[in-house]
Amino acid sequence: MPQQPVLSDRLANVPASPIRKLVPYATEAKKHGVHVYHLNIGDPDIKTPDVMLQVLRTWDRNPIAYSQSQGEPALIDAINRYYRECGYPFITQQHIQITTGGSEAIFMGLFSVTNPGDEVIVFEPFFTGYNSQVALTGAKFVPIETTITNGFHLPDKKMIVSRITAKTKAMLICTPNNPTGTVYTKEEMDMLVAIAKEYGLYILSDEVYREFVYDGTTHVSLLSYMKELPDQAIILDSLSKRYSLCGARLGMLVSLNAKLMQGVLRIAQGRLSSGLIDQLMASKLTEVSKSYIEGVQKEYEKRRDVLYDGLKHIPGVTIPKPEGAFYAIVGLPIDDAEDFAKYLLTTFRDNNETVMVAPASGFYATPEKGKNEIRIAYVLNVDALKRSIEILKKALLEYKKG
Amino acid sequence: MPQQPVLSDRLANVPASPIRKLVPYATEAKKHGVHVYHLNIGDPDIKTPDVMLQVLRTWDRNPIAYSQSQGEPALIDAINRYYRECGYPFITQQHIQITTGGSEAIFMGLFSVTNPGDEVIVFEPFFTGYNSQVALTGAKFVPIETTITNGFHLPDKKMIVSRITAKTKAMLICTPNNPTGTVYTKEEMDMLVAIAKEYGLYILSDEVYREFVYDGTTHVSLLSYMKELPDQAIILDSLSKRYSLCGARLGMLVSLNAKLMQGVLRIAQGRLSSGLIDQLMASKLTEVSKSYIEGVQKEYEKRRDVLYDGLKHIPGVTIPKPEGAFYAIVGLPIDDAEDFAKYLLTTFRDNNETVMVAPASGFYATPEKGKNEIRIAYVLNVDALKRSIEILKKALLEYKKG
Repeated sequence: MPQQPVLSDRLANVPASPIRKLVPYATEAKKHGVHVYHLNIGDPDIKTPDVMLQVLRTWDRNPIAYSQSQGEPALIDAINRYYRECGYPFITQQHIQITTGGSEAIFMGLFSVTNPGDEVIVFEPFFTGYNSQVALTGAKFVPIETTITNGFHLPDKKMIVSRITAKTKAMLICTPNNPTGTVYTKEEMDMLVAIAKEYGLYILSDEVYREFVYDGTTHVSLLSYMKELPDQAIILDSLSKRYSLCGARLGMLVSLNAKLMQGVLRIAQGRLSSGLIDQLMASKLTEVSKSYIEGVQKEYEKRRDVLYDGLKHIPGVTIPKPEGAFYAIVGLPIDDAEDFAKYLLTTFRDNNETVMVAPASGFYATPEKGKNEIRIAYVLNVDALKRSIEILKKALLEYKKG
Repeated sequence: MPQQPVLSDRLANVPASPIRKLVPYATEAKKHGVHVYHLNIGDPDIKTPDVMLQVLRTWDRNPIAYSQSQGEPALIDAINRYYRECGYPFITQQHIQITTGGSEAIFMGLFSVTNPGDEVIVFEPFFTGYNSQVALTGAKFVPIETTITNGFHLPDKKMIVSRITAKTKAMLICTPNNPTGTVYTKEEMDMLVAIAKEYGLYILSDEVYREFVYDGTTHVSLLSYMKELPDQAIILDSLSKRYSLCGARLGMLVSLNAKLMQGVLRIAQGRLSSGLIDQLMASKLTEVSKSYIEGVQKEYEKRRDVLYDGLKHIPGVTIPKPEGAFYAIVGLPIDDAEDFAKYLLTTFRDNNETVMVAPASGFYATPEKGKNEIRIAYVLNVDALKRSIEILKKALLEYKKG
């Protein structure tokens, strides 16, 4: 009798995206003419700089050939200039690996510093994409909880150190934080760097939202500690949010660790290159005016204000004031945020409109945590955001009645 | 004293690309004004169809937003039509996952059917990129040798079956073959399918060069066996070579196994999407005329003839007549093909020109195999190819003298 093979156990461990798994319900609602406000995914409505789109309109290369594995030279050069202008002149071209989206930078970072079963400390809630990459690399997350009550800032050193074992290889952080909007202070970054030094850990720092900090806050980058721990500091970065290039799949892994960079380049050779067109388009970032980034930052700050002011007055709703990025974790006066998110898409309608949000439980590694929370991405313009808040408010009332 | 962490053992196991590792020597030669003919990498000089480039020139979407994780609907639809026109109407949209290059399809396929340490049978020499993906997934290749003497066709069933163990999960094949140019016959495909059924193995079939077969040969696709072993057949495909889109990073994984496709989609969600621009550009493949593909096929057949006729008369050179794809493994009358490849780039000049070839040892998993062989990609026009052969011939004479 012929045998049937079975799929790998590890495939079953790759999680579905909690951001995307409700998409079929949204698609169904739209089919019936319902307008859905998308607060569920960090896909900005901000325009991509026109100087980049001009690269497409004037395209004259043919054929569309492979780029180089490390990255297209024009883009590496532009990124190098970017970090120099950020105040880190010690970053040179050999410290930069162009990746196919920030996701690939996360994969490369985790793969490089862990063997299967090795532990990586991560502060939950955290960006759901980390779960996918940790499942693909076979590393193990050790989640340390941060809570809505203190705006998701870090616990003290003693608490963090208590979770370090012989298998701990790294800490993975994200500041400004997706999904919480928290920006780690200088004291918090000092503490993390001290722990890394003391216990010989890598720090992987996801700084995709570096420019998006509000209320005059300064972002404290791991880059400013890089010369102190040259072999242990790894920056994970992306162009997606900075230039509204989500669909261009471009990120970077940056480190002063030469052996790491050689290894990462070998991984990159295995997939030949990132996209040529996307890279040549993005290489025009050097021609994007400072006012573009400032304008984007101001726009998100305004939206943050609208969201915060709109939600904080709804009875039972908890929202720490987001300090950066364009996300907020919002506590709701309900038991099951996933059920509520489905309800929004399948049942609730206000003037034939509804909103889509991401249940926050998918951003926690620990089961049962964040069950009454949602993540909101405030990537809609002020009017759409105001209307979304109004819908959420009404839906909460209706849902609790039901 | 502060501790220093160490990089993972598995990072050291990710191989450098043997196709790309000589690049620095080529760069150096070019800096000194030497013209280098690139026979080392399958990056075609054939033009990308203009109807695709028109998508760039008339680009009007802004911002550049994420695409869907399964793939941009227009591209999935186009690919679906393509397979239907190839004669496989049972392939529908749910059986297609768009991947970021064929490399990602290989990763997804290997990850899905193996747990770390599980074995995958592969026929060597094989595409070097497989080594990277197997290192990333922690699976283990069991190489079965094919040899230049019978044109790299498969050994008999008994030999293959003798390498199956309790840990064997799959066979990974490539037809038309990179790097050998071999096209498996119906008898060979029948045998592989019979083995897969009898021993409960997956077959991963890389058919990136499906259209490139010569001398009136018919390509026998695993697709034509798919309904016989719906859960076990997995097609790995790419648009790179078919439409000269190497730099667009688009491939596909195709299977009738619903559970596999769900798992693969979850992996895809972890990296959000493939590039939007590349996908919209490639979705115009439905408007590419049949004569484009036929013209490309004829052009490669002509080049194959030039290469074969040119090389077979050089004393000591062995070249089986390539049946498909645009590669040939060529045996040279020397001991160390890598040393010869370096010599070409660093020392040999003919009228200030030289050629770059890929040492074949990197295409073997077994150490010491293929040491006197090179892989040639005949991706240059006939004149450049003739000149390259002339240079190779002269260089061999000079090298042997030295």
